[in-house]
Amino acid sequence: MNNPSPVTIELIRAAHERIRPFIHRTPVLTSGRVNAIASAQLFFKCENFQKVGAFKARGAHNAILGLSDEEAARGVVTHSSGNHAGAVALAARARGAHATIIMPSNAPRIKKAAVLEYGGKIIECEPTVPARESTTAAFMAQTGAVLIHPYDDDRIVAGQGTAAVEFIEQVPDLDYLLTPVGGGGLLSGSAIAARALDPRIKVVGTEPALADDAWRSFKSGQHVLLKSTTTIADGLRISLGERNFAYIRANVHDIVTVTEDGIIAAMRLVWESMKIIIEPSCAVPLAALLENQVPAAAGRRVGIILTGGNVDLDSLPWMKK
Amino acid sequence: MNNPSPVTIELIRAAHERIRPFIHRTPVLTSGRVNAIASAQLFFKCENFQKVGAFKARGAHNAILGLSDEEAARGVVTHSSGNHAGAVALAARARGAHATIIMPSNAPRIKKAAVLEYGGKIIECEPTVPARESTTAAFMAQTGAVLIHPYDDDRIVAGQGTAAVEFIEQVPDLDYLLTPVGGGGLLSGSAIAARALDPRIKVVGTEPALADDAWRSFKSGQHVLLKSTTTIADGLRISLGERNFAYIRANVHDIVTVTEDGIIAAMRLVWESMKIIIEPSCAVPLAALLENQVPAAAGRRVGIILTGGNVDLDSLPWMKK
Repeated sequence: MNNPSPVTIELIRAAHERIRPFIHRTPVLTSGRVNAIASAQLFFKCENFQKVGAFKARGAHNAILGLSDEEAARGVVTHSSGNHAGAVALAARARGAHATIIMPSNAPRIKKAAVLEYGGKIIECEPTVPARESTTAAFMAQTGAVLIHPYDDDRIVAGQGTAAVEFIEQVPDLDYLLTPVGGGGLLSGSAIAARALDPRIKVVGTEPALADDAWRSFKSGQHVLLKSTTTIADGLRISLGERNFAYIRANVHDIVTVTEDGIIAAMRLVWESMKIIIEPSCAVPLAALLENQVPAAAGRRVGIILTGGNVDLDSLPWMKK
Repeated sequence: MNNPSPVTIELIRAAHERIRPFIHRTPVLTSGRVNAIASAQLFFKCENFQKVGAFKARGAHNAILGLSDEEAARGVVTHSSGNHAGAVALAARARGAHATIIMPSNAPRIKKAAVLEYGGKIIECEPTVPARESTTAAFMAQTGAVLIHPYDDDRIVAGQGTAAVEFIEQVPDLDYLLTPVGGGGLLSGSAIAARALDPRIKVVGTEPALADDAWRSFKSGQHVLLKSTTTIADGLRISLGERNFAYIRANVHDIVTVTEDGIIAAMRLVWESMKIIIEPSCAVPLAALLENQVPAAAGRRVGIILTGGNVDLDSLPWMKK
């Protein structure tokens, strides 16, 4: 809650200027085979090729590069079991700040390894939300470190919105723009950017049915929290943020849900047809198209933000079946 | 042996003009992380993103698009358990010709599926070289079909050489250009192209030590045949072609070999760091750098042709260990 001002396209453009030297302008790929199967003209913005292998590098760099010298000297802290952890470590290194990541003891090996590779420090806690929050609060009280929340922060929302800015520059005349929704940082930022740059684009959030708090919130108008979930989309096992819900209500066209089998099938289709590695969370928008959850997108120009490519190669979803 | 004239850069350029509308100009990717590990500045030409998922689309299109109407009416035939099979099927469809592929009964499921997807016909044979050759000869005698050999054919060599032409346009001032070597079509074509376009580039063939017939041929000056091999690099389980050996002797700087563990480690490094899918054969050049088989490449600008991305996702090499 460090920056309560609402996110605007100007804020997103300023974020883009700030982070540009530190991130990749990721390519957009297409696949005739996937188009034929999905019955639409698809464009994939490859944030799986982004620094740290995920779009999370954008928000983390925006938040951390924008810290004052006094704030940077206190160091930064976050709690994350996912890609935000590595992104905060990398961005803190670029800013010359210490980064401490509170990680649940069962966090994936590769996510811990990324934090250490980028020079971050890990403090382990019990794998529950209360334990994460209390451990983070205790660390902040003890050290004065600045919290870099994974999504409920306008600096993060503005940073994540830069992916959509690039995408709309790279591919004109999109009819739809689809992203996954977990905490809602990417979906919020994308929808704000698209609405400002090309209001004809319909921005649609896509979510596992097993973690459908954003869908239920959007449909009911009441902010619903996610209790627990076993979805394979490990990046989306979090509740929609409060501020993110407000941005989404104001700017998003629709939210739809997909099955677990649909996620695995879409992930495998991308691996096999496009020869690129995407993580399960990243396959949710394509799954929504393949499961015909966005029927009006048939035959249209549909942009999908591929959010990340960090997968444990020793444990692939189709091997568990 | 349909076209006995030696391959020149003019022939490669003509091939490029012929196939250009039917193939992708594949991108070149880089990775700071892989550079740091390999201690060189690496450029990866992504033929894993090529049509049919492999550079083989280039040679097959050049050979088949160049057929006379009379030849095309007779149909084409080849024997292959790998990427050449799908490439011939796709190119024949583009030419409006029937394609028949003689495949060993144990050919990978995905390679058979590719042939069928592109409209080719499969005739199965026993999984031995004599059975492949006799089945092919019988089919040709019976139907008059034109043989499209996977590598021992100047039209194929010229087509494969187009990848190096693009690569040298995309990345100036390469010091080294590394490719795998199986039958030798890609290495021959690449070396002829590089020598004509920028003779300072040292072209190096890389081969599994378990299938080192090209290395032994190159070092001894005598054409050695591969007897049998268990290398994981399934695309390289073939003998160097006779004409390819002549081109390689005349144009290649060196051939080096790598271990099986090195191939698997290099493949996994590319998957994890670059988020792209490459098949084992495709990892051999990077393995050569990581195993320090090309010590003079340290610190230099090294191009690697990533040859293909067709992998059975149900059976990955690091899962067999």
